[in-house]
Amino acid sequence: MKDVTGQKVLRDSRVTLAHGGGGKAMRDLIESVFTDVFEPDGMEDQARLTAEALAVPGARLAMTTDSFVVTPVEFPGGDIGKLAVCGTVNDLAVGGATPLYLSAAFIIEEGTEIALLRRIVATMRDEADKAGVRIVTGDTKVVGRGSADQVFITTTGVGVIAPGVELKAGNVRPGDVAIVNGVLGDHGACILAARGDMALSSDLVSDCAGLGHLMAAVQAACPNVRAARDCTRGGLASALNEIAEAAGVAVEIEEDALPLRAEVKGTCEILGLDPLYLANEGRLVLFVPEDEAEAALAAMRSVPEGEGATVIGRAKPAPAGQVTMRTLFGGARIVDMLVGEQLPRIC
Amino acid sequence: MKDVTGQKVLRDSRVTLAHGGGGKAMRDLIESVFTDVFEPDGMEDQARLTAEALAVPGARLAMTTDSFVVTPVEFPGGDIGKLAVCGTVNDLAVGGATPLYLSAAFIIEEGTEIALLRRIVATMRDEADKAGVRIVTGDTKVVGRGSADQVFITTTGVGVIAPGVELKAGNVRPGDVAIVNGVLGDHGACILAARGDMALSSDLVSDCAGLGHLMAAVQAACPNVRAARDCTRGGLASALNEIAEAAGVAVEIEEDALPLRAEVKGTCEILGLDPLYLANEGRLVLFVPEDEAEAALAAMRSVPEGEGATVIGRAKPAPAGQVTMRTLFGGARIVDMLVGEQLPRIC
Repeated sequence: MKDVTGQKVLRDSRVTLAHGGGGKAMRDLIESVFTDVFEPDGMEDQARLTAEALAVPGARLAMTTDSFVVTPVEFPGGDIGKLAVCGTVNDLAVGGATPLYLSAAFIIEEGTEIALLRRIVATMRDEADKAGVRIVTGDTKVVGRGSADQVFITTTGVGVIAPGVELKAGNVRPGDVAIVNGVLGDHGACILAARGDMALSSDLVSDCAGLGHLMAAVQAACPNVRAARDCTRGGLASALNEIAEAAGVAVEIEEDALPLRAEVKGTCEILGLDPLYLANEGRLVLFVPEDEAEAALAAMRSVPEGEGATVIGRAKPAPAGQVTMRTLFGGARIVDMLVGEQLPRIC
Repeated sequence: MKDVTGQKVLRDSRVTLAHGGGGKAMRDLIESVFTDVFEPDGMEDQARLTAEALAVPGARLAMTTDSFVVTPVEFPGGDIGKLAVCGTVNDLAVGGATPLYLSAAFIIEEGTEIALLRRIVATMRDEADKAGVRIVTGDTKVVGRGSADQVFITTTGVGVIAPGVELKAGNVRPGDVAIVNGVLGDHGACILAARGDMALSSDLVSDCAGLGHLMAAVQAACPNVRAARDCTRGGLASALNEIAEAAGVAVEIEEDALPLRAEVKGTCEILGLDPLYLANEGRLVLFVPEDEAEAALAAMRSVPEGEGATVIGRAKPAPAGQVTMRTLFGGARIVDMLVGEQLPRIC
């Protein structure tokens, strides 16, 4: 059934098990809600892609995947679809890859509003356009009520790593400078407030953003950038611990250099949370040699996602694998990996 | 914590929310259950892959994704992990691509047994080895009890389509011969029996299998193979309807040529199901020009997954888009797309 503009009309307002059954209802849902927006090149099960960048001798294919289960699925500053596109774009970008193509697989709970799916899909298309990637293939599955929570999305991204590019945690050396691209913890604190069960009123907006353009700017400006990590689950603390361990260096950060909104600090104080472990979805930490730090800051600040770029610390020779923070009072404390769970379903 | 063999020991017997939190518990789960078995090249978030086949001028990258939500997660002949690997390998293979790399993302319900995850991961590794693909990157998320049903897996596959290869539904022409690789409906009937709520006792085993080697054999033997489709959700009927519609041809199949086990026929008769719509996870339908049909049959029968290969019908000029079946009694009936839902969570 099509309307006067030729667009497929879906009569249902909620997803039923029939929409996952492989028949007519599924095809109608896919065409009306997904492929009309994502506009893949064909309706074969597989996308068929040409990528000249991959044919360059020495180029490598980058591949990464993430499932998104955030609750609530819509929150100030974004929704699960924005997270799914940005999260996968960022995983490619922080590894030095140029993101090219995404797949998107949806697990949908029976009874989910189709209008909600349409909003999520529209966000995904917008974010993909901004990031310069295409969503080329996908899948939908429907499960009964109570067997999932509204919608889960798994995005997989492929990109290309240009010859000679080698960003990895193990590259960080003593003396390298650690830079973040903006205030920390907004996403975690925003989701916490959006859940409503803490009765926190908040104007916080998730920091969710694609960081592909930022990474491209940094790589162009800093030929020796060592490594970058997006600070998602487990926050800045986990990213720094991974880097310290992989590189066999110590990392020392300065508490008074950490960019934090008063509101995020306040939320953490009330709830006994540590902002170092709060999730971010548009923040990364970057290590560059000291003589490239100024160039990296300038490059980051040249794009909107890096306006708040600032140095937070540096790598030291020892003790290997340890992250410490010099506190406002002049002491030092160890910043360990997160133990236990701070906030489930944050992304 | 490591045991005497150096293997990481996980003290928990069930998954907790902490295993999804981005901290120490998550890292222990990932190392102990997933990466120790999948053995990716590094512990960066992204896999970095070289593929000489992709650098060949004219080669294309194939990409496909599927989420798996089958219940029960373990069944005669396989488990959700086997489905996840075979399903994605098959989506690549039926499009003429050589499968190369897979990603695997797990959404796990709190309380799921870690021993179950280990069995699933072991199956995935086995199937990937059989198919000649590598599982190169992955993700785990944990959701609370009741927010998912044990474990959902999303696999994404990339492969390479050699220059000049062009298998697609739209290529099928009148006169082409339709071939399936074995008995139909075993997977659907097996899952139905495994759920136990029908009180069917059954010796049926899922047909779940990777079809990459079969497709490679057919492509080597038949330079003009037109199209192939795996007959998963929606069964043979849906695959044939998609082909008939895309190619603008009619497809006529013969009821007495359809390979069906007596047990599957019986299950369908008791429950009022149509075997044409039963899901298969190791069956495909292939269209080849008439003069290549013998070569295709021989090629299929040369591999274990094609031992039961048989001709089931052919493409005709009209009526375009229609699939009909000549019945045992000499009549003909239209085989339409599945309407509604036959069996939820079959894959």
